[in-house]
Amino acid sequence: MPESDFAEFDVVGIGNALVDVIAHADDSFIDRESLVKGSMTLIETERAVSLYRALGSAVEMSGGSAANTMCGVASFGGTAAYIGKVSNDELGEVFGHDLRAVGVAFRPGAPEVETPTGRCIIVVTPDAQRTMNTYLGVSSMLCPPDIDMPTVASGRVLYMEGYLFDRDEAKAAFRHASRVAHEHGRMVSLTLSDSFCVDRHRDDFRALVADEVDILFGNEDELMSLYQVDSFDDAVAAVRADCALAAITRGPQGSVIVTADDVLVIAAEPVELVLDTTGAGDLFASGFLYGYTRGMDLVECGRLGSIAAAEVISHVGPRPLVELRKLA
Amino acid sequence: MPESDFAEFDVVGIGNALVDVIAHADDSFIDRESLVKGSMTLIETERAVSLYRALGSAVEMSGGSAANTMCGVASFGGTAAYIGKVSNDELGEVFGHDLRAVGVAFRPGAPEVETPTGRCIIVVTPDAQRTMNTYLGVSSMLCPPDIDMPTVASGRVLYMEGYLFDRDEAKAAFRHASRVAHEHGRMVSLTLSDSFCVDRHRDDFRALVADEVDILFGNEDELMSLYQVDSFDDAVAAVRADCALAAITRGPQGSVIVTADDVLVIAAEPVELVLDTTGAGDLFASGFLYGYTRGMDLVECGRLGSIAAAEVISHVGPRPLVELRKLA
Repeated sequence: MPESDFAEFDVVGIGNALVDVIAHADDSFIDRESLVKGSMTLIETERAVSLYRALGSAVEMSGGSAANTMCGVASFGGTAAYIGKVSNDELGEVFGHDLRAVGVAFRPGAPEVETPTGRCIIVVTPDAQRTMNTYLGVSSMLCPPDIDMPTVASGRVLYMEGYLFDRDEAKAAFRHASRVAHEHGRMVSLTLSDSFCVDRHRDDFRALVADEVDILFGNEDELMSLYQVDSFDDAVAAVRADCALAAITRGPQGSVIVTADDVLVIAAEPVELVLDTTGAGDLFASGFLYGYTRGMDLVECGRLGSIAAAEVISHVGPRPLVELRKLA
Repeated sequence: MPESDFAEFDVVGIGNALVDVIAHADDSFIDRESLVKGSMTLIETERAVSLYRALGSAVEMSGGSAANTMCGVASFGGTAAYIGKVSNDELGEVFGHDLRAVGVAFRPGAPEVETPTGRCIIVVTPDAQRTMNTYLGVSSMLCPPDIDMPTVASGRVLYMEGYLFDRDEAKAAFRHASRVAHEHGRMVSLTLSDSFCVDRHRDDFRALVADEVDILFGNEDELMSLYQVDSFDDAVAAVRADCALAAITRGPQGSVIVTADDVLVIAAEPVELVLDTTGAGDLFASGFLYGYTRGMDLVECGRLGSIAAAEVISHVGPRPLVELRKLA
C-alpha cells in the first residue's frame, strides 16, 4: 500500500444503494415463491410488488453490500465514503441518513426522477440464511458521471461490489473509478458478491481481477465459480496466480487470506446464536479493510474481519448495532 | 357485551397511522435534544428534520398505537380492522402492507395529496425506555367521512387512541365513530395514550369517559392525570364511579382491572431482558380485548394482556415478532 500520499478516506465504496425490506419466513415460503435459498435474484417491478404482497410483516433498514461495508469501516473508527444512487423519495432519504449517521461521507451522484430508490426484499429463514430479491430501481442507473472523482482519488482503497456488474452502465462506472484510483496511486478492491452473479459475468470478472484488482474479496463458492473449479484448493491456487491479495470467507470455518507467499487461515469468531447471516461478507471486508488501511498485519486484518462478521450475524440486519471499535 | 349480533370483527381500531423510526441513543442525546424521557411529543416538519438529522442509524417499522393493538389481536387469532390515514407514498405503502400481512383489514380513509405519511421518531435509551417524537403528517387529517361506518358497525368493540384528541377533526371523527358503534349495540373502548396528552385534553377525556367509554385502558400515570389525584387508589376509586370497566397497567407491577364490584390484580409476565418498552400498553390492550371479545373471564383477559406486553418489550419494535396465539 502506498504510504506516502495524504488520503481523506481509508476506503471509498461504490455499490447498489438499497434499502433492505427484511421479513422472517419458513422454508415453505421459499418453495412457494420459487426462491433459491442463500442467493441474490434481480427482480423487476411487477415481481417486487407480488413478492412484497406475499411477504409477512417486515422491517426496513438501509442495506446495500458496499454501503454496509463502509458503515463497518466507520464503526471501527476508519474514514469512509460511499458512492451510489438513490432517488428523491423517502427510502432515499432513509438511506442517506443512515450513512451520514455513522459518519460515512455520501456521494449520491446526480439525482434522477421517476425511478424509485432500490430495495432488497430479504427473506430470513429459521436457519438464519438470507435469500435476497433485489429491485435495483435508481441504483442501477449509476453511470460514469456519477462517480465523484476527487473522492475516489482521495481514498486509500477503492472498494466495489460485483453486483454492479449486472448493468452495463454501472460496469462502465466501475471501470472508470478503477482507472481513476490507479492513476492516483490508490488500490482497487472488489467483492464477488454472489456466485450466481459471478456465473452471469464470469469473463468480465476474470479480466477485471487479472488486470485491475489488487485485493479480492469473496466466499469460497464465489471463488470456485470464478475459476470454474471443484475444490477450494484449486480456487486458491488460481487466485494466487491472478491477484496480489485475496481474502476468502468460509462461513463457520473462518477465512483464508491468500498472498503470493502465504495462505493464512483465520478462525471465525464464536457466535452464541446466529440469527441472520445478511451482511456477513460485507462486514468481514470492513474489518479487513480497516486493518489493512491502518497498516496492520494480514492476520490482524482477518481477525478484525471475523469480529465484524460475528457481530452482524448475531442480530437481524446488515449493519453493526454496536461500535466495532469497542469489540476490536 | 352483547352476545347476539353477528360481528365481522372482534375489534375495530382507530388511530394515528404512523411508521416508527427507531434508533438507540444514550441519555446525553435525550438531554441535548431537550426531550422528556418516556413521553410523546408532537413535532412539526422542521423539528422532525432536525431531530432525524441528529439521530443515529435507524430502523423503520410500522407503528401507531391502535394499529399495534390490532396487530396483537390478529396475532392472538382474533379478527381486527384498522381505520387510519396514510399518504400515497412509500411509508404509506409499508404501513398498509404490514397490517395486511398479519391479517388486519385496513380502511385507510380517503387519500390526500401533498402531506406525507406520519412518522414517529422513537429514541430507545439503554434503560429500554422509549421517547417518542411524532410528526403526524396525513394521519392527523382523519375526519368523520374517513370513518368507514359499516366497519365500525361490525366490530364487537371499537378501540380508539387518546392521541387522536390532539386534533379537532380527529376528535370529531372519534365521537362520530363512538356514536355509530353504540347505535349498533357495540362497545366503545379508549386508551388514554400518554399523560401529557391527558393533561392537554383533560376535560374532553373526562366527558368522553363518563358519557361514552365502556372500557378504559391506560397506565397509572395517565389515570392519575385524568382525575388529578396523587394516589393510584384515588384514581381507581374515581374511574370506578365513571366507567364500567377499566384495565390499568403498572409496568413491572402488572395491571389492575377495575369493575363496579371488583379490583383484580394481574401479575406481569416475567421478562428475561427488557429491550424496548415501545408498544407495551398497546399490546396489553390487544390481549385483553382478544380475551374479552372471546368471552373469557377478566382475569384471563388480563393474563393475555400481560403475555402480549411481555413479548413486545423483549425485543425492539412495537409489534409482536411471534404469534401470540402460540404463547397464550
